[in-house]
Amino acid sequence: MAEIRETRADHYLIPLPRALEDSMHGRMAGFEVVTARVRDADGAEGVGYTFTCGVNGGAAADILGREMAPRVAGRDADLIEAIWKDLWWAFHYGGRGGPTVLALSALDMALWDLKARRAGLALWRLLGGYDPKVPAYAGGIDIDLTPDELVAQTYENRAAGHRAIKMKVGRPLLREDVAKIAAMRAEFGPDMPLMVDANMAYTVDGAIRAARAFREFDLVWFEEPIPPDDPAGHARVLAEGGIPVATGENLRSLWDFRTVIASGGVSFPEPDVTNCGGVTPFMKIARLAEAHHLPVTSHGAHDITVQLLAACPNRSYLEAHGFGLEQYIEAPLVIEEGHALAPDRPGHGVVFDWERLERLRP
Amino acid sequence: MAEIRETRADHYLIPLPRALEDSMHGRMAGFEVVTARVRDADGAEGVGYTFTCGVNGGAAADILGREMAPRVAGRDADLIEAIWKDLWWAFHYGGRGGPTVLALSALDMALWDLKARRAGLALWRLLGGYDPKVPAYAGGIDIDLTPDELVAQTYENRAAGHRAIKMKVGRPLLREDVAKIAAMRAEFGPDMPLMVDANMAYTVDGAIRAARAFREFDLVWFEEPIPPDDPAGHARVLAEGGIPVATGENLRSLWDFRTVIASGGVSFPEPDVTNCGGVTPFMKIARLAEAHHLPVTSHGAHDITVQLLAACPNRSYLEAHGFGLEQYIEAPLVIEEGHALAPDRPGHGVVFDWERLERLRP
Repeated sequence: MAEIRETRADHYLIPLPRALEDSMHGRMAGFEVVTARVRDADGAEGVGYTFTCGVNGGAAADILGREMAPRVAGRDADLIEAIWKDLWWAFHYGGRGGPTVLALSALDMALWDLKARRAGLALWRLLGGYDPKVPAYAGGIDIDLTPDELVAQTYENRAAGHRAIKMKVGRPLLREDVAKIAAMRAEFGPDMPLMVDANMAYTVDGAIRAARAFREFDLVWFEEPIPPDDPAGHARVLAEGGIPVATGENLRSLWDFRTVIASGGVSFPEPDVTNCGGVTPFMKIARLAEAHHLPVTSHGAHDITVQLLAACPNRSYLEAHGFGLEQYIEAPLVIEEGHALAPDRPGHGVVFDWERLERLRP
Repeated sequence: MAEIRETRADHYLIPLPRALEDSMHGRMAGFEVVTARVRDADGAEGVGYTFTCGVNGGAAADILGREMAPRVAGRDADLIEAIWKDLWWAFHYGGRGGPTVLALSALDMALWDLKARRAGLALWRLLGGYDPKVPAYAGGIDIDLTPDELVAQTYENRAAGHRAIKMKVGRPLLREDVAKIAAMRAEFGPDMPLMVDANMAYTVDGAIRAARAFREFDLVWFEEPIPPDDPAGHARVLAEGGIPVATGENLRSLWDFRTVIASGGVSFPEPDVTNCGGVTPFMKIARLAEAHHLPVTSHGAHDITVQLLAACPNRSYLEAHGFGLEQYIEAPLVIEEGHALAPDRPGHGVVFDWERLERLRP
């Protein structure tokens, strides 16, 4: 038994090199990282993290440090399913979403890291092992770029090893979005895998109208056309819009995914390991997608997620989207010829530079 | 314009006279109250609160004080819909559930209290005005009582003015629940309105089996038969079990209610003003129920909720369930002949004894 001795929560605020904007979240000047470090009785440690768009990191750290840490102390770190279920129910009333699930995600990730490190296995091997070479795409936050700026950014991404590109849509005028997509196709040809992401900007009928306008551009997917609370609306967008739909970065449980998958409203389920409840539900969501003959993609936290998709035969693209966190990680993920390679170091392989992070206290 | 000058968050831990237990939340030794006090430029104040089963009050207070307070400072307190929508989206990524919605509920309640107090109107009048005399029931937390103890508790509740009773079900053996319900019907006859509450203890098929066993007892409703994440499962329980279903205390938005109502899985939608996002979404949920030809009931916070149901022509029973908070309120709600009366004081009419509360810092 690997008894849990200590769970440490830390809260950091990472400034962005330039402020970002998308259609629904508004302006973001920085993002918060909340880390979980679990140490067992033998002194072995596992590390997890979650992040926010700049709001509620304090609450996530409070939940992790004040509420979760004492509840897991003394438990067998190997029994992750048991710990996860107990925490889900202990926190159900003030949980089941929000910063509670962000905190749970970080803790769960740390427990899987600990388990894999103790086993001397890379996480992708421990979780089943499929293929460490995972196709990746560059996710841009570029809603306010002109077509020319978007093309220039795409050249940068291709120079950095990317072959597939996701761009934002959801501008006030649909024809502005169409012009940008057309500029991308004109510059890079019909074969470059291209996704668009609306960040929930549309109504259901607006999304159907947009999907029909995008149809001629042969997109890989149309991401988050509408808010996550409308499974039936997703089904209409997919069926009537006529192009594949990705969604999931704003779903917060296995059961949220089940509902939208069962509604027929998603082509590419897209869990985020830092907000869906951790590695445990991420893998269940990936397997649920497989059972429904669907690929699985991902959102955020690419350094960790490459390990998870490398264990999934139905993995689609990994989103590469660092937000600048790579400056605080030893040996950040490398993209080559459109692929990321899951490292073979024990655990998830992400090692933070804690001294540099220490300068980023909020 | 009633400009918001200050929003104050406070966190209290209220011990229960005796520890409570239900089938899913386990043992509760106390509950937390997080209050929001909004003061405008004229010095007028509105008060709101939320509560927890003993977990995550710290996070809710952190969100309210650290994150929400600065975001609403300087805004027009009358524009509650505008403030609510902006906060919903500002907090969406680390929100849409969990302590974020608890905090939002408290803030929204305070804004409605402020508005009604400034207008010199009781909240139930401001919200439309239907009938201040609201049928109520006593919600017991009595899963571990014997049939005799349950009958004795019911006599106490009747002596306190109650005419309708809700009891817990979900014991390991279904026949134990059936025996307790039978004892209640044997003692109090077939006409006493009687509800049962499973606190999510069952699987879908288990709930259908239980509903069929309960059918002969002519219950008003079967509450929370299964976890809230399965709208299709609710529809099966209602249709195949053959008795009315209540649910909602663990739904956290108007859209959660829409999904379960649209699924055909609920007979009595049951929002809680302290966790559904506040007065604003509570009233929308009540109106959504009305549009679906459904009654609306409530969960918790009866002192506030009596004001809301008094504005709803489709109101069903008010749950009376104080958790001991009435000791810290001036003029707590009185139940007479099975009804509660919404007071005609301006605002929601709940005035806390802040000095007594001060002794309850966690």
